[in-house]
Amino acid sequence: MLSSMHPHDGPLTRLRRGHEQSVLELLRKYGPLSRAELGTRSGLSRTTLYDIVAGLVTSRAVVVGTPYIEARKRGRPMEKLSLNPAAGEAVGIDFARRAVHVAAVNLAHEVVGSASEGHAADLSWPERVDIAVQLLDSLTTGARGESAAGGSGRAQAVHLGALRAIGVGVVGPTTDPGSESAHAQGIDGLPDLLRKRFGVPVLLDNNTRLAALAEAVWGAAADSSDVLYLRLSHGVGGGLVVGGALHRGRHGLSGEFGHITVDPAGERCECGGTGCLETLASLDAVLRRYRAAGGRADSPARFLAAATAADPTALEVLARVGGEVGGVLAAICHAVGPGVIVVGGELAQAGDALLEPVERALRQHLMPLARHHVDVRRATLGEAGSALGGIALVLHETPLLTHYPQPVSEENA
Amino acid sequence: MLSSMHPHDGPLTRLRRGHEQSVLELLRKYGPLSRAELGTRSGLSRTTLYDIVAGLVTSRAVVVGTPYIEARKRGRPMEKLSLNPAAGEAVGIDFARRAVHVAAVNLAHEVVGSASEGHAADLSWPERVDIAVQLLDSLTTGARGESAAGGSGRAQAVHLGALRAIGVGVVGPTTDPGSESAHAQGIDGLPDLLRKRFGVPVLLDNNTRLAALAEAVWGAAADSSDVLYLRLSHGVGGGLVVGGALHRGRHGLSGEFGHITVDPAGERCECGGTGCLETLASLDAVLRRYRAAGGRADSPARFLAAATAADPTALEVLARVGGEVGGVLAAICHAVGPGVIVVGGELAQAGDALLEPVERALRQHLMPLARHHVDVRRATLGEAGSALGGIALVLHETPLLTHYPQPVSEENA
Repeated sequence: MLSSMHPHDGPLTRLRRGHEQSVLELLRKYGPLSRAELGTRSGLSRTTLYDIVAGLVTSRAVVVGTPYIEARKRGRPMEKLSLNPAAGEAVGIDFARRAVHVAAVNLAHEVVGSASEGHAADLSWPERVDIAVQLLDSLTTGARGESAAGGSGRAQAVHLGALRAIGVGVVGPTTDPGSESAHAQGIDGLPDLLRKRFGVPVLLDNNTRLAALAEAVWGAAADSSDVLYLRLSHGVGGGLVVGGALHRGRHGLSGEFGHITVDPAGERCECGGTGCLETLASLDAVLRRYRAAGGRADSPARFLAAATAADPTALEVLARVGGEVGGVLAAICHAVGPGVIVVGGELAQAGDALLEPVERALRQHLMPLARHHVDVRRATLGEAGSALGGIALVLHETPLLTHYPQPVSEENA
Repeated sequence: MLSSMHPHDGPLTRLRRGHEQSVLELLRKYGPLSRAELGTRSGLSRTTLYDIVAGLVTSRAVVVGTPYIEARKRGRPMEKLSLNPAAGEAVGIDFARRAVHVAAVNLAHEVVGSASEGHAADLSWPERVDIAVQLLDSLTTGARGESAAGGSGRAQAVHLGALRAIGVGVVGPTTDPGSESAHAQGIDGLPDLLRKRFGVPVLLDNNTRLAALAEAVWGAAADSSDVLYLRLSHGVGGGLVVGGALHRGRHGLSGEFGHITVDPAGERCECGGTGCLETLASLDAVLRRYRAAGGRADSPARFLAAATAADPTALEVLARVGGEVGGVLAAICHAVGPGVIVVGGELAQAGDALLEPVERALRQHLMPLARHHVDVRRATLGEAGSALGGIALVLHETPLLTHYPQPVSEENA
């Protein structure tokens, strides 16, 4: 992502970024340092160091101050450089189908606030962006994120004055806001809208993939760097985290677990395929199967209530669904070899009634050598997951992006 | 791999490595430079630079010389630093079931030689290492690698005096020579044997995965950084290259495409599973299916000859096999999203008779959005592939390993 923002960087620009990064790391590690101390520790020449520091101060990543004890001495007081406490924050926004979720972290990468608000599915992008801005404003003033009915939030004051970048989740398979698929989804104007409102670079990705990254950073798989995340909701999808980084695939089409064929003679899927996992394991498919088996429920929520109450028909349906899901997961495990599988989405609320048959089928289909090398866990981050994933994206993919106040130009977005 | 070799590196060691890397990159880019020129271009202080250069000279990565034109001047002649032309070479060794393959590259990362020799399946590891040493010796003297019957090679003289590391492919799913699975395969002494013979770090990986990496670097997918490689041979396996790097999975168990279940009611597989792709698409399985369909052939080679001669029974069997292979590839594509699929192994010699049904089934099972985003190609590197992959591993994973004459200690191997 960084390289795509700076496609024409030469080795000398990279060298400069490396020096900036060294200076920032030293300030992070040792706290405030004078230019002389930075020179000794960084190994940079005086000329290079002064040049690098000037750039960092201009971009507000670093601030200059004179400690009280120094100011009292005679002669020219010694200046100390330190990280700008208002800098480096990141926010994540998830534009889900019918809700906007936001979250923010401080310089220590602690989550300091999150908020959500529901909306109609046909709300325009400018209106959705307005909701995101209001929710974020509510976080910065320390107010609860309840700018409209249905809003909810937990927040403490957070300064967004020197945002590094914004990580944004959207529905659908895209990483490239300028691409055809972005256009087809009608989100091609979104990055522009956000850049105009916040004046910082915008990183865009599929929101289910971002939820995968968030579970690997802050959630159920925070101890693992190779994670398979499966989301069983109105749709079925997921994401892969490989070596701690979000895996995207060549054309942004990865984690499409819902469209793996399970039954070649099965039902037609929305994607155009036949017998995809989504036709068997989405919330609606599971509800349909439950009713076909004689169960009575008129909504996914009631089906989940029946499953929680150990209704035998519901458990039987979940056992079948779990078997199919486990078979697909085994195939992906053979290919990819994750250490942890995280199952999220509303259907995961069924708990062990779903997860036990998933694990059983998984181990049955895995080659013996691989059987004890993967854990199955329920997702822990809930609806804020994708917004948190947007933050993780910013923290992972813009480590050298110190000149954040400059908006990214059109060509490089 | 680098980080696992230096698990206790502090930020200052990393800073030093970064400086070393900057100096090496400048010498690679600009050719011989004086210390003063290096100082200006690198931005390092005189003290730091002299210290870094001294380390690089000691480790023989950099050599010091005085250009003729300078030597003629009065006063102290100016020294120029340059990359050691004898340094930085890498070799790869593939210990296959019944053969040893070796390959070597020069500083420009051009393949300068490869050689092979067959042996009995039960040959001991010290004897296999002897064969590897002889084959490499034949490359360094420019002789053809024909140290025994069955040997073959193309070679030009290559100096192995300052090897960076050796990349080694072995049969079986392992990346960690100290692990249980390495022990189970009886290769736990191999890295030691090689370190003693060559005195350099040894990087070990599954040889099929290394063939995948080689196809992505030098072979059929040299234009793509996201590659799925499938090998159809006596076994069925493969590897994934993700963002240009070899993907291993949490426990070194990835690319096991042969053990994805295709027919849950199918035959027992060697792995302990049932109906794995390998039971349907390995050379032996295909031969068996051909004979069951009335075809006459007593070896895979004769089956391939029949297929090449357009024998209708052979083509029919390949169409069925291709359909099954394409279905499995579609599932992996949904999960991983590669840009190129490379099919290798002996069965790929059947060419379009196999690849056309593979592609047909692949596109049938892929969601429409993904259908035109993946190319299917036949592997191009042949039997040297895994040895070349070993070299690619060294070049990719030891970029900062400049102090190569020190063998890696046991704990860090």
